[in-house]
Amino acid sequence: MPARVLIFDPTVSSRILTRAALAEAQYNLVVAESSADAQVEMMRGRPDLILLGVVAPAAGAFAFLAGLRADPQRRGIPVIAVGRLSDPSLRLAVLRAGADDLCDRPVDPVLLQAQVRRLLRRSDSLAELCLREETHRALGFAEEGEEFLQPGRVSVVVPEGQAVLPAVVPVLDRLPGGGDVLDPRSLLTRIGSGDAADLFVIDAAAEGLRPGELFRLIAELRSRASTRHSVQIAIVPPDMTDMAAMALDLGVDDLVSARVRPAELMHRLKALLLQKHRADRAREKLRRGVENSVTDPLTGLYNRRYALPALKSVTDQAARSGRMAAVMVLDIDHFKEINDRFGHATGDKVLEEVARRLAARVRVGDMVARIGGEEFLVVMPETDAEAAAEAAERLRSGIEDRPFESNREGCPAPPPVRVTLSIGVALGAGERPGEPTLFERADAALYSAKLAGRNMVSLSRPAA
Amino acid sequence: MPARVLIFDPTVSSRILTRAALAEAQYNLVVAESSADAQVEMMRGRPDLILLGVVAPAAGAFAFLAGLRADPQRRGIPVIAVGRLSDPSLRLAVLRAGADDLCDRPVDPVLLQAQVRRLLRRSDSLAELCLREETHRALGFAEEGEEFLQPGRVSVVVPEGQAVLPAVVPVLDRLPGGGDVLDPRSLLTRIGSGDAADLFVIDAAAEGLRPGELFRLIAELRSRASTRHSVQIAIVPPDMTDMAAMALDLGVDDLVSARVRPAELMHRLKALLLQKHRADRAREKLRRGVENSVTDPLTGLYNRRYALPALKSVTDQAARSGRMAAVMVLDIDHFKEINDRFGHATGDKVLEEVARRLAARVRVGDMVARIGGEEFLVVMPETDAEAAAEAAERLRSGIEDRPFESNREGCPAPPPVRVTLSIGVALGAGERPGEPTLFERADAALYSAKLAGRNMVSLSRPAA
Repeated sequence: MPARVLIFDPTVSSRILTRAALAEAQYNLVVAESSADAQVEMMRGRPDLILLGVVAPAAGAFAFLAGLRADPQRRGIPVIAVGRLSDPSLRLAVLRAGADDLCDRPVDPVLLQAQVRRLLRRSDSLAELCLREETHRALGFAEEGEEFLQPGRVSVVVPEGQAVLPAVVPVLDRLPGGGDVLDPRSLLTRIGSGDAADLFVIDAAAEGLRPGELFRLIAELRSRASTRHSVQIAIVPPDMTDMAAMALDLGVDDLVSARVRPAELMHRLKALLLQKHRADRAREKLRRGVENSVTDPLTGLYNRRYALPALKSVTDQAARSGRMAAVMVLDIDHFKEINDRFGHATGDKVLEEVARRLAARVRVGDMVARIGGEEFLVVMPETDAEAAAEAAERLRSGIEDRPFESNREGCPAPPPVRVTLSIGVALGAGERPGEPTLFERADAALYSAKLAGRNMVSLSRPAA
Repeated sequence: MPARVLIFDPTVSSRILTRAALAEAQYNLVVAESSADAQVEMMRGRPDLILLGVVAPAAGAFAFLAGLRADPQRRGIPVIAVGRLSDPSLRLAVLRAGADDLCDRPVDPVLLQAQVRRLLRRSDSLAELCLREETHRALGFAEEGEEFLQPGRVSVVVPEGQAVLPAVVPVLDRLPGGGDVLDPRSLLTRIGSGDAADLFVIDAAAEGLRPGELFRLIAELRSRASTRHSVQIAIVPPDMTDMAAMALDLGVDDLVSARVRPAELMHRLKALLLQKHRADRAREKLRRGVENSVTDPLTGLYNRRYALPALKSVTDQAARSGRMAAVMVLDIDHFKEINDRFGHATGDKVLEEVARRLAARVRVGDMVARIGGEEFLVVMPETDAEAAAEAAERLRSGIEDRPFESNREGCPAPPPVRVTLSIGVALGAGERPGEPTLFERADAALYSAKLAGRNMVSLSRPAA
């Protein structure tokens, strides 16, 4: 899909100039001159980015931004405000209203194109996975209410012997995480030591930091594991638009001119810290989601999806090494009755407690999984018949020995629940096609244990 | 953690020069002069990158590469071979032995540092999530055996009016996916249309493509959704090392000189297509892993982890809108006996078929989940008592009406299994603290249905 860029600007000459500045990049440009037109274009297709024309007092632009940021479906669309934006209070007001970046008229095509690329690139890692909407919601990606200032450690990078830009000083003082000041060389040492900040403010407007050095610093920060996910803002000399554009393409997250006012800088740093916070949280949720995909939510044990391939890998390994592995299928006796007599809440508590006791009674390399309602699997690599029988008896008695708590609400002294386990065990060092697998043999042994009266261990006879 | 870079070079002067070329970047540099030293250093800490000194005939370097690439723990460590590498057959041999990149002596520090950054940056998205090793294995990330040539569409970008570099022609002919030739402007149009290649070969050594244009093309390819995950290689004029370094920092995946031989170019394109194939697969597995985290592996329904928060969101919505939602808890009757009589395989088939029938008999916006062994949950937003009772009866009769297949292996005509369902239903438009939730009321109604003889629907009386 081509990137769809909406230019909304009531002034015809401005629309034409903005359009011309982007023509080279071959975006799918759509143009709106009124708020109503803009709404229609947004309905026709979600823009990937909006260029919003601003002419003071810009009531229309503010109304548009307010509407956009209040719309849950569209609030994530990046906006660059384009206009004569030299008035500091207008700049701040437009940023606070929700613009992601500003572009001064007359528009510099090289810089504007780089700004657009930067914002198009800043799509989150989750969006890229194209998850189903339900999954997104289930993982809570759409959570709200963290618009407040995120704490974060800030490093200001200034060439050796240079002072911190006056606009930066009051901002540093007001940041909750505090900040420190480094020269470029110390920055690299600091990154090397793994003790890196969340946000870097690189002063490339100061005497003594050449464009090449700025570019290298940005590239170094992006290449190191410890700072790849940090956010960076560069302070650039006014009118160095080629340098500014290159810095954006190299991966800097934001730019300000050396003439920036403290209030605007503060706003941008806050926005960057929030951006980092969201990206960190999204990665963490992704990690947790993937971890969850192999575990059973109730007990925290591995689930069937994980257990069956893992079992196969253990039996394959046993076939290669010739050393026997033991497989147990374990089933809670009369679990249905527990559920019926004491209720599902107690049933769940029993499952959790059984899982806990099993997990506490196996060796480090053994695997415990919940593979069905009240059915568990234990896989023990490199285990002989004697050790397997001992282990199974340990698991069985570990359940029988101590009664379980029931969970009758409103009942002052809930009666204890007696829980027992039947276990089928099979051993082998390999499986032959056409013969029962270790799992099937263990399952058959479990069936014998059930028939023979439950609460016992049954060993499968070794395969012929 | 600082990036740990191992320099293994038997020649003392080369070691010193390589070390000096990287000094500025403040890596944690460790040095080895023999293969034994290198092994010791690799045991002390896994290097993030290796610089391998090569002096023809380079038997030691080839042996080292062979050992590294055969070691499952270390085969992923990137290697840059450093030496006098003007001989095309030596270059090719070193690449084929497993070097990721080559660096000619005398070393250009600017270019070498950019090559190092490029390879440090190329860590995969999965490694960054720091998953447990078991999870990695479960998702099959460590699969092997796809070292063969991956098909992929290739676009060669050459300035308008220029011919394709002679070395490129035979390579294009041999690529299974084929290739086409574009000028930079058509490239941007093509990307815009969403019809983009997997691999871009950008000829920046040809007359008419200025460095700024190369940089912009790289940045455009990286910023667009359709080409962000493509791979790119630039052909650069010999001795334009600053341009080459900048191209790497902007995100090009590989570089060759305009003097490249077809065999080396072919090798590099194959390596890039393999890199892309792996990255695509890793993203797909990540996506599937996250999707899996909210579904039950056996039935494909939502699992308990998803269902309970989703239920809460529906009841919250009902409380806000004042429109009733219906909640059903459904339980297969005598499921334990089905398992005991027909075996677990049949039990699983019954669960799958029940899930299929339930899912086929609800409305689009309703949710069906498996929340326990044989227990299901159905949530129906904006549903009144009559519609809920009808739906529940439809679900109940949908299970009773048609017998299920059993799964007795070796049994010529497996007996059909009769399956029935008990259902508890509760309705409400909000829940009050201290009073039973909709779920608890549905669960209590299910209990009544069980007591009253099973295979029936029981409606919870509305809350007072």
